[in-house]
Amino acid sequence: MDNSEKKSLLEYIQNYKKLAALGPDDINLLCAEIRSLIMDVTLKNGGHLGGSLGAVELCVALLRVFNPERDKIIFDVGHQTYAYKILTDRLDKFHTLRQKGGISGFPRRLESKYDVFDTGHSSTSISAALGFAKARDLLGLGHEVVAVIGDGALLNGLAFEALNNISECDTKITVILNDNTMSISPRIGGMAEHLAKLSVSAPYKRLKQFVKDQCRSIGDSRRIERKLAAWKTKLKSLLLPANVFEDMGVSYWGPFNGHNTRELEEIFELSKRYPRSLLIHVITKKGKGCAEAEARPSFFHGVGSGTIIGDKAEIASAPPIRDWSRAVSKNIESMASADGRIVALTAAMEDGTNLGGFKERFPSRYFDVGIAEGHMLTYAAGLAAGGMKPVVCVYSTFLQRAMDQLVHDICMQKMPVLLAVDRAGLNGEDGETHQGLLDIAWGRSVPGLTICAPRDRVDLDFFMAEWLERDIPVMIRYPKGVITESLNRAGDEAAPWGKVEILRRGNGACVACIGAAVKPALSAADICEGKGLPAPTVADLRFVSPVDWETVDNLLFSHSLLITAEDGYRNGGIGEAVAARAAEIGSSCAVRAVGVNAEYVPHATRDEQMKDQGLTASGIAALVESFYGVSVTREAG
Amino acid sequence: MDNSEKKSLLEYIQNYKKLAALGPDDINLLCAEIRSLIMDVTLKNGGHLGGSLGAVELCVALLRVFNPERDKIIFDVGHQTYAYKILTDRLDKFHTLRQKGGISGFPRRLESKYDVFDTGHSSTSISAALGFAKARDLLGLGHEVVAVIGDGALLNGLAFEALNNISECDTKITVILNDNTMSISPRIGGMAEHLAKLSVSAPYKRLKQFVKDQCRSIGDSRRIERKLAAWKTKLKSLLLPANVFEDMGVSYWGPFNGHNTRELEEIFELSKRYPRSLLIHVITKKGKGCAEAEARPSFFHGVGSGTIIGDKAEIASAPPIRDWSRAVSKNIESMASADGRIVALTAAMEDGTNLGGFKERFPSRYFDVGIAEGHMLTYAAGLAAGGMKPVVCVYSTFLQRAMDQLVHDICMQKMPVLLAVDRAGLNGEDGETHQGLLDIAWGRSVPGLTICAPRDRVDLDFFMAEWLERDIPVMIRYPKGVITESLNRAGDEAAPWGKVEILRRGNGACVACIGAAVKPALSAADICEGKGLPAPTVADLRFVSPVDWETVDNLLFSHSLLITAEDGYRNGGIGEAVAARAAEIGSSCAVRAVGVNAEYVPHATRDEQMKDQGLTASGIAALVESFYGVSVTREAG
Repeated sequence: MDNSEKKSLLEYIQNYKKLAALGPDDINLLCAEIRSLIMDVTLKNGGHLGGSLGAVELCVALLRVFNPERDKIIFDVGHQTYAYKILTDRLDKFHTLRQKGGISGFPRRLESKYDVFDTGHSSTSISAALGFAKARDLLGLGHEVVAVIGDGALLNGLAFEALNNISECDTKITVILNDNTMSISPRIGGMAEHLAKLSVSAPYKRLKQFVKDQCRSIGDSRRIERKLAAWKTKLKSLLLPANVFEDMGVSYWGPFNGHNTRELEEIFELSKRYPRSLLIHVITKKGKGCAEAEARPSFFHGVGSGTIIGDKAEIASAPPIRDWSRAVSKNIESMASADGRIVALTAAMEDGTNLGGFKERFPSRYFDVGIAEGHMLTYAAGLAAGGMKPVVCVYSTFLQRAMDQLVHDICMQKMPVLLAVDRAGLNGEDGETHQGLLDIAWGRSVPGLTICAPRDRVDLDFFMAEWLERDIPVMIRYPKGVITESLNRAGDEAAPWGKVEILRRGNGACVACIGAAVKPALSAADICEGKGLPAPTVADLRFVSPVDWETVDNLLFSHSLLITAEDGYRNGGIGEAVAARAAEIGSSCAVRAVGVNAEYVPHATRDEQMKDQGLTASGIAALVESFYGVSVTREAG
Repeated sequence: MDNSEKKSLLEYIQNYKKLAALGPDDINLLCAEIRSLIMDVTLKNGGHLGGSLGAVELCVALLRVFNPERDKIIFDVGHQTYAYKILTDRLDKFHTLRQKGGISGFPRRLESKYDVFDTGHSSTSISAALGFAKARDLLGLGHEVVAVIGDGALLNGLAFEALNNISECDTKITVILNDNTMSISPRIGGMAEHLAKLSVSAPYKRLKQFVKDQCRSIGDSRRIERKLAAWKTKLKSLLLPANVFEDMGVSYWGPFNGHNTRELEEIFELSKRYPRSLLIHVITKKGKGCAEAEARPSFFHGVGSGTIIGDKAEIASAPPIRDWSRAVSKNIESMASADGRIVALTAAMEDGTNLGGFKERFPSRYFDVGIAEGHMLTYAAGLAAGGMKPVVCVYSTFLQRAMDQLVHDICMQKMPVLLAVDRAGLNGEDGETHQGLLDIAWGRSVPGLTICAPRDRVDLDFFMAEWLERDIPVMIRYPKGVITESLNRAGDEAAPWGKVEILRRGNGACVACIGAAVKPALSAADICEGKGLPAPTVADLRFVSPVDWETVDNLLFSHSLLITAEDGYRNGGIGEAVAARAAEIGSSCAVRAVGVNAEYVPHATRDEQMKDQGLTASGIAALVESFYGVSVTREAG
C-alpha cells in the first residue's frame, strides 16, 4: 500500500470495492481513520457517536465478506451505519451528515442503492430481512440477507415476533446481534440477563472454535449442518447454557469479538455456507476508540452539534439548559414528593426525557422498561388500575408504537395516566423517522383523551398539576428545545382548565394557535401591526381535545378570518376541527390552516423545517396580509 | 348436596362464594352444567364458544383458590371468561350475553367489580398484572395478581415485552398459561414449537410431583424457594429441556392438566405460597365437552347467533354467504394466479379473513404470522422491498396495533403493500374493543397512504386491480357482513381511480358518502323525495385520501348543504376534511357530518349501533329535512 502521497488510506480506497485487497495492518489503520472521521463530523454536526464508533470493524467486515450491491444488509435503527455509509460511496458527502440537503443519519433508500431499507425506529430489521429473504426464495434469487440489530432493539416485542417467526418462515437470514450491553440506557429485563450469561460463556468459546474448524474442513453445506447438529445434540445439555434462540429454532453462534475483523470475517464467511437462519452474537463496545464515549455511553449515544471533547477528557458542552424535558421531569419530582402515588415510566429514554433525577430520588417508583413502548402503556394502565398515578414520558414519534395500548388499555378504561409527550412537532436533524407530527391527528380521534399543549412553563406546570386532581387520561405535548418561562402573561396565573386564552385582542383576523406555534403567532401580529394592518387577535387554544368551543365560536363570529397554527400535520389536525365547527355553527368567518404538509419532513435544523412548513411569524403574517390583499413578501420568521 | 328440588347445582350455589363447600363430584357436575349453559347461550346469541368451554375447570379452580373480591384476576383477550362471569354474580344475566344492554362478551369494569381490567385485544394481561402488582407493593397491600393468557396471545410482542420485564420488576405475579395449542388458527412459530416440547415433557411431569411434594411438606415460602432452587440447579441440565421462561428469569411450573380441578387447585394453592413471579403451564382443550367444537376448533372459536349443532353432529349454520372477506380473498386468489408476485398475509385470522382457499392454492405464498400485527406489516414491507406485491388482510381494530409499522416501514418508503382492512366501522356484538372506527382518522393523516372504501363488489374489484398496477401503498376498508354485488350502477364499469362518483343528481342538498354509508345515503334521498323535498345529490367519495377535491369543490359550489356520511369517528374523519376544504375555497355551502360520536360503542347488533349513531337513511334524511325546516320524525333506517 502506497501512502507516500500523504493521502489517507480512506481517501485512497474511496469505497468498499478496494477493501478486499487490504491486509490486516491496513484494515486496522483504515478503521482508525474511519473512527477519526466519524468523531470529527459527528461532534461538529451532532449525531449518534457511540453506536457508530462501536460498529466500525463490524461494517468493514460485512463489506469485505458480503456484496452490498447484491446482498441485502439491513441495519436496525440505523444510527450505527456511519462507517457503512462512508465506505459505500458517501465518503465525500459525509461532512454533510444530518445537514439540510446532506446525507441522512439513518439508512435512506433514496440516498443510496446500498441502503436497502429505511430505518430510524428500532427492531424492524428482522421482520424486514425475513421479507427480503422470502421474496428472494420466491423469485429464485440467491443473495444473502443480513439484519444487524443491537441488543436493546432485540428485546422489543416487534423483534421477538420476527424471531419467533423465523423457524416458520423456512428461509435463510443471518441476524447479527451487535451486543454492546447497552441499548440507549443500560438494557433491561430477563432476556438481557440471559444475553449477559451467553456473553461470558466459556463453552461457547469452545463451540466457536469447533464451528470454525468443522466448517473450514468441509465443503458441502448440508454436511456442515449434519455435523453441527450431531455434535450439538450430543454435547449441548452437558456443556452449553440454555439458549433462548436455539429454543426458538434459530441457530446461535457466538459470542465473537466485534472488534476483531479477522474473526468476524471468518465467521461471516462460514455463515454464507450455512443453509439455515442463524444468529451471530457479536460483542462490541459502545464508543470504541473514544475514551470519553466509552466511559459515558448513554451521554454519547447521541451528541448535539458543536460538542467538544477537551484534551483532558473534559467535555465542554453547553451548560445544562432548562429545556422542556427538564421542566417536565422536575415537575414530576415535585409531584412525587408530595404524592406517593406518582410513578414515572420511560422506554429506554432516561437521558432523553431527563428522568435521572427522578430515578435517584424515587428508585422504587421509577420504571425503565427498555425499548417497549407498548408494554409501557399497558403497564401504566395496570398501575393506574391498581391505584397509582403513572406519568409516562415518551417521545411523540415513539408513542406511534403504542397507539392501540393508548386506546384499548388507557382511554377506554379512563385510566388516570399522564402521557408526557416529548419532542412533539418538528425535530430537526434526525429527519423523517423522528418527527412528532402525528400525535395531534391520532390523539384527537381517541374518545376520552384530553390533549393539551403548553406555550410556556406556567401552563406546563398548571396542566400537570391539574391532571393530578382529575381522574382522567391526559396527554401533554411539548416540543424539543428550550422552554419559555413565561409568554405573554401579566402574572403567574394560568387560564382555567379547558379554556382558550386570548393573548392579544385585535380585529379582523384571529390566529388560533397552540404550543410551539404561539410564539410565531404573536410575532406575526407584530409584523401585521408594523405594516399598518389591523393587528389580529391571538388566541392560545391550549387544548387540542376537547376544544373550548364556546370561546372558539365567539372568535369565529367576531372575526372575518381565523387562522389556525399547529406543529403537526394539517390533515387530521386542529385546523380541520375548527373549520368543521365553523361550518356547523354557520359562521361566515374564513378559516385557514397553518401546519405541516402531507409529507415526510427530512433532516435539517428544526428552524429550517419550521420555515419550510410556514410555521413562522412571517408565514402566518403572510396569510393575514394575503387576506387584506397586501402583496406578500416572506421574511425569516 | 340436595338436588331434590330439581334446581340445578348452579342455580343452587348462584355464585362462587359457595364453591368452597363442594366436593369433587359436585364440581364435576357443576362444570357440566356451566358448559351446558355456555353452549345454550353462545349458540343462540353468538360468541366465543371454544375458548370458554376449554376454560371452565380453570375458572372454577381459580375461584376456589383465589378471592376475586381482593385478588386481581386478569383474563387476556377475555373471550374465555364466560364461566368466570357466570360464577361472579352474572348467572341471571348470562342469557343477555352480547345483546344490547346485556352483559359483554369480554371483561368490563363497568359491568362488575369482579372484572378488574378490560380486555378484548390480546396480550395485555401480563403488562397489566405487573402494573397491579407493583401498585400493590407500593401501597403495601397483600393480594395476589393473576394473569390468565392463552398460548397464542403469549407469542405476541407485547406479551414478550412484559415477560422480559418480569425479572426486572421485582414483584410477584402469577401467569397462568392456558395452552390449548391453538390461538385462533393453529399457533405459529418457534416459541410454539418450544411450548409443544414442554407440553409433552416427561421430566416436567416428575418436576410437577416434586413441586407438589416439596411445597406441601414445608411451610416457609423462603424455604420452598431455596429447596426448589437447589434441586433445580442440580438436576436441571440433565433432566429438563431448555426452557425459555426460566432463561428469562421467570419460574416455570408445568405442564398440568387444565381439566383436572383438583390438580389445578393444588398448584394454585402452592403458587400463593411461592414468593416470586412464576408461570404455570396448563394444558386445555379448546371446545372441551362439545364434540363438534373439539373437532373444529377454528370454526368454533367464535360462532354467529343462531348456530345449531344437530343431534348427528352436523352443523346447520347458514350457507356460506358472499361477504366482504370472501370477495376480497377470492380476488387475491385471482390476482395471485395471474401474478406470481402476489403474496397474502394474516395475523392468526385465516378463518376470519377467509384465506383458507388462498392457503390451499398458494401455500408457499401464504403467511400466517400468528398474533403479530406489527411484525406482519414490517414483514410485508420487506417482501415489497424484495420485489413482491403483498396483500395484508387485517381487521381494522387490530391494525391499531401496527400503526407505526404502517407509517415507518410501509408508507414512508412507499412500499406497494395492499392493506385489506376488514371489519371497518361498527362491528356489533363484540363491542367497544372490536370497533373499527379509527382507521379513517388515523390513516388519513399518514402521508403517502391512499385510502379507499368500496360501496359494492364492482368498486372492490376495481380498487384491488388498480392497486396492482400502481406502485404505492393502498388501504381498502370494508365492513363486516354481506357484500352488495352492484349498487346504483348502469353497467359493470367502475368510475376512474381517485374520482368521486355522482350516484344521483339532485339539488339543494348533497350527501357525500363513502363505503357502508352509501346505501343509507341513497335511501335517504328516496325518503326526502317521498316527502316532497328536493331530492339531494348523492356522491360516493370512494377515496378517503387523497380526496378528489376537484369534484368536491364543484359539489360545494353547486349545493346549499353538503352532508358527509362515514362509518368512523367524526373527530378526525372525512367530514372535517371536507369542512376544512369548504372554508379554504370560500364556499358558502353549509357542511354537516354524519359519523360516530366520540365514545366507545358498546355491544349491540350492528344495525342497532348504526341507528344509535344516526348512520341510517332516516338519520341522514333528518339532516336534510331539518335544513329545509321540515319537522323531523326519525324512522328505522
